[in-house]
Amino acid sequence: MNKPLKYAVFGAGSWATAIVKMLCENLDEVGWYMRSVYTKEHLLREYHNPNYLSSVEFHIDQLKLSNDINEIAEYADVLIFAIPSAFIHSELEKLNIDISNKIIVSAVKGILPESGLLLGEHFHEAYKVPYNNIAVIAGPCHAEEVALERLSYLTISCSDSKKAQTLADALSSDYIKTKISDDIIGVEYAVMLKNIYAIAAGIAHGLGYGDNFQSVLMSNSIREMKRFIKKMHKMKRNINNSAYLGDLLVTGYSVFSRNRMFGNMIGKGYTVKSAQMEMSMVAEGYYATKSAHLLNEKNKSKTKLPIINAVYDILYEGKDPKKTFKKLTEKLD
Amino acid sequence: MNKPLKYAVFGAGSWATAIVKMLCENLDEVGWYMRSVYTKEHLLREYHNPNYLSSVEFHIDQLKLSNDINEIAEYADVLIFAIPSAFIHSELEKLNIDISNKIIVSAVKGILPESGLLLGEHFHEAYKVPYNNIAVIAGPCHAEEVALERLSYLTISCSDSKKAQTLADALSSDYIKTKISDDIIGVEYAVMLKNIYAIAAGIAHGLGYGDNFQSVLMSNSIREMKRFIKKMHKMKRNINNSAYLGDLLVTGYSVFSRNRMFGNMIGKGYTVKSAQMEMSMVAEGYYATKSAHLLNEKNKSKTKLPIINAVYDILYEGKDPKKTFKKLTEKLD
Repeated sequence: MNKPLKYAVFGAGSWATAIVKMLCENLDEVGWYMRSVYTKEHLLREYHNPNYLSSVEFHIDQLKLSNDINEIAEYADVLIFAIPSAFIHSELEKLNIDISNKIIVSAVKGILPESGLLLGEHFHEAYKVPYNNIAVIAGPCHAEEVALERLSYLTISCSDSKKAQTLADALSSDYIKTKISDDIIGVEYAVMLKNIYAIAAGIAHGLGYGDNFQSVLMSNSIREMKRFIKKMHKMKRNINNSAYLGDLLVTGYSVFSRNRMFGNMIGKGYTVKSAQMEMSMVAEGYYATKSAHLLNEKNKSKTKLPIINAVYDILYEGKDPKKTFKKLTEKLD
Repeated sequence: MNKPLKYAVFGAGSWATAIVKMLCENLDEVGWYMRSVYTKEHLLREYHNPNYLSSVEFHIDQLKLSNDINEIAEYADVLIFAIPSAFIHSELEKLNIDISNKIIVSAVKGILPESGLLLGEHFHEAYKVPYNNIAVIAGPCHAEEVALERLSYLTISCSDSKKAQTLADALSSDYIKTKISDDIIGVEYAVMLKNIYAIAAGIAHGLGYGDNFQSVLMSNSIREMKRFIKKMHKMKRNINNSAYLGDLLVTGYSVFSRNRMFGNMIGKGYTVKSAQMEMSMVAEGYYATKSAHLLNEKNKSKTKLPIINAVYDILYEGKDPKKTFKKLTEKLD
């Protein structure tokens, strides 16, 4: 009989915490790496993450906690990364064991800003992880609703469908339904792009556009996302599946989305700097906008990306949100 | 030179009022039929509709108001119907002039419950209006945002693209952008189906499902809508265009949607009767659910419509919402 796989989650944000909770429904032990000594000690003492989803109480004997990334990477067969893309690079610098035979799972919502690579691509290039050992977890799934055990659906993508199913089984429960997919690249791009469209939705809202426009923006966003992903990785996919359209909607319509909130402040007249300071964090979509723009610029035959380009012009070229969106409205239909 | 076309709107609800407002931006005179003598007199005296969009003030000399449907039908070349589908039949019984050479525009959000026909089909069969004289106005467009002059997009469908464009021009303004389409049947079905999905969204909300599930429901709804429309009228269409997906979203995500509100009450445990009494009106989607169900039953090779069937079972077969939706969640992905 095969030894059961050991799982570990890297990161201590809300999404990481939600994934640990899902795994704890099925596994005797879950490895959990977090940078903060305080968070670890709080978990050991109070059984919950002090900063995120603090209503979720863990059975502490189910958790193998550590502040040492190598210890947890060594421990687990399946390494699930749920660290904001902007911090992945500095975290991975600490990793010095061989992980080329591990299964690497991306629950990262963006591209690594330093390289423009998807997490899976990065692990393949830097750590020699074969592509059929790389998987992606996609929503639509607010971590907050996982804490409340509200029914949510996940899509697990891996080119090796058996591994996808094993991972899906480890995450499934009464309140988590899973499906598997082999479109690992498309799903990972979708996860990243939706944050840009959520910023666009926020800017529109901040500028005073209403629900009618929001629905037109989302309808144009999913068409633009389809064009973008098709250019990056052409294969048969239904862009209206939950991992693409569903994830776009849960983010684009959420008033709790940090990306939408960031966009909203930009639309209301905050500068990028002051919006970021006010939120005391950087919205993932901020980096994703630059990455998506650059990826498209690199292509010889560029795709029409009016929404991404409008957000890029506002965030990186100092263009006026009002005028930029006025022009954008002419390009939508 | 051609004489300019005369336009008239039939109905005095919020959508009818919004369309009159749009036309008044471009035309010297707009015909407007309404059943209620009180509404007409109030408009003449106070310059606004007493019941709907009462913030919209009309220039009364731009309006040709009448309580006589034949007078207004006689007057206009383009007859725009924005009467709830449940009342169309009784209104049209009063119509006794020949309208076979008029352009008939459906702004009706449903199927005629008596016949299961789309408005266009009804005018073709009962009044010998040729199909290339029949058009449809579709959103996504809450009337309330037209009142506020918030940017909105309309799709005008007609098999005669010149007529579609003429109508589009009459409706376009600073805050209304229009596009034309030749998919009159598909657009009209979409307008009707979205109300069923809005009821489903309401039921889910009433039962306590959250935003994650809502986005999965919408993602499944647009795929189901695509299957339904394809079965009814196969042609090349992008279901993610604003007239289909956009309209679904603006309704399914609106807390103001009467259909969503109706569903919400059902989900919270109201009976169909008491929900209807409480709302003192019947949500369009209630009839649409039956029509869509029947249309699909009539087909030899039925399409999988798990969402419509779940709503049908709850509204017409007395099935328990909680159990029915629990079963539905197994069919979604």
